Amino acid sequence: MDFKAELKKYQIQIDQELKKYIRKHECPEKELNSSMEYSLMAGGKRLRPILVLATYKLFKEDYKICMPYAIAIEMVHNSSLIHDDLPGIDNDDFRHGKPTNHKKFNEATAILAGDGLLNNSYMVISQDLLNTKNEKELSKKIKILNEFSLATDRMLAGEYLDTEYEGKNIPFEELEYIHKNKTGAFLKLSARMGAILGDCTENELEKITSYSEKIGLAFQIKDDILSVEGNEKITGKPVGNDEEKRKCTYVSSYGLEKAKEILSKITKEAILELDTFGEKAEFLRGLAKYIEIRNK
Amino acid sequence: MDFKAELKKYQIQIDQELKKYIRKHECPEKELNSSMEYSLMAGGKRLRPILVLATYKLFKEDYKICMPYAIAIEMVHNSSLIHDDLPGIDNDDFRHGKPTNHKKFNEATAILAGDGLLNNSYMVISQDLLNTKNEKELSKKIKILNEFSLATDRMLAGEYLDTEYEGKNIPFEELEYIHKNKTGAFLKLSARMGAILGDCTENELEKITSYSEKIGLAFQIKDDILSVEGNEKITGKPVGNDEEKRKCTYVSSYGLEKAKEILSKITKEAILELDTFGEKAEFLRGLAKYIEIRNK
Repeated sequence: MDFKAELKKYQIQIDQELKKYIRKHECPEKELNSSMEYSLMAGGKRLRPILVLATYKLFKEDYKICMPYAIAIEMVHNSSLIHDDLPGIDNDDFRHGKPTNHKKFNEATAILAGDGLLNNSYMVISQDLLNTKNEKELSKKIKILNEFSLATDRMLAGEYLDTEYEGKNIPFEELEYIHKNKTGAFLKLSARMGAILGDCTENELEKITSYSEKIGLAFQIKDDILSVEGNEKITGKPVGNDEEKRKCTYVSSYGLEKAKEILSKITKEAILELDTFGEKAEFLRGLAKYIEIRNK
Repeated sequence: MDFKAELKKYQIQIDQELKKYIRKHECPEKELNSSMEYSLMAGGKRLRPILVLATYKLFKEDYKICMPYAIAIEMVHNSSLIHDDLPGIDNDDFRHGKPTNHKKFNEATAILAGDGLLNNSYMVISQDLLNTKNEKELSKKIKILNEFSLATDRMLAGEYLDTEYEGKNIPFEELEYIHKNKTGAFLKLSARMGAILGDCTENELEKITSYSEKIGLAFQIKDDILSVEGNEKITGKPVGNDEEKRKCTYVSSYGLEKAKEILSKITKEAILELDTFGEKAEFLRGLAKYIEIRNK
């Protein structure tokens, strides 16, 4: 399997699907809609929605049923990025190499665009619930909606602690707690949504959950490494940004080499969780490796 | 019926119910939870949740079934107040006579507390959906969830326009559009949620919808009037605040006397919509009058 080609195919599909949800532009609040569109289409890696689709594909072929959930998680994710970038939180001017939402528009618009995208995700999910007539399907999706809201809550808690600890010494358990919530909760949710929608067994769900927890941790460690030795032009973020803000990271806690060792170990462990799925999990194995070796 | 006593009874019940949803305080993010609690319990009028319960009572007695929805709308309402008060939007220091969330805590906490309360409302609703086993009840509640997300979207659009037009001349149609969305959408949603949960007929839903649209408009006109001639110590907001910010209001568009006339007319019309419900609607009639004559 050509992992990069497969990844690109997924990204294009997600981008096409996202465009269907772009809000109308002939209303008085069109600039607010433009600002939501701006951030949503600014070109992220689409890791979370891809994880929904790819996990579903372990169990069933046609992932159309997953799309509202893939879109919804990308929306909340972008909502959190807009708010994190605000002057009151990280005060970042660039994201994906482009001006952040409040720089491109203004602060009030960015606050409300973040709220809008968060709420939009529930508009998308509730519309899908309205369209679902089969009782068994509906009960699965309500379970997912509930997990979705709880994971968003965890993401916000993680973001809050990340902000509060900025420039302070942080015990390592707290750092792990932050990552587990801020980054981990959504990656776990994504994989679980795909698996639940695909009618996995309890045992399969456990494996997928463990895989996603491990790539979530790997993702964060890699982020920390990139913030020290990444290429600014590729990552779109200033190198040394975390250090400058005295943010506690895996690198500042363990040193660069040890952080890379942990990253490699955790990636191998994640891949091991997929054994039970055989050939079908090839893309998810590639995804774990991609998270380890990515340069942005 | 002693309207004020009845109103007080409702307010106490809502406050008691809200306390059940206060988040735990033994976790690393306890300060974020405190900040959500601070704003949620800062003592609003509880108009929206009361409207849910009182409308339900036109049809059925035991309004326990409405509580998650009454709580949820009060949560989103408070989420929007926290964000509106932020330096990036209205930059207000006081609300209900107490320091605003970002003044009491800090800006980052206030941004995330607003996000948290918005998301919390969906945690509450999705938990109720999980608990609902009856198919007919579930289908009603999914319809409500969808309306809830759409109304929140309208509220945000209204808030956005209100912000954008600050200090600018605004055509009257735009002002009406803002009010219809910013204030109206939630009051309408509240009344409709109560009626739908109470198994109203289509015709009854129309009457309730029209009543709520009218009291929504009345509420906004009265707010505009209070901002000119209210008692600062009672309203908790500085008098002349809107004028100072050159906000367009009913008073600045029509003058004080004409605004009062419109308020009186629209209140009478709202009350007329309740004729079909007879004695049972006495509290809702009182509520319309209360909105007209309130001093805060």
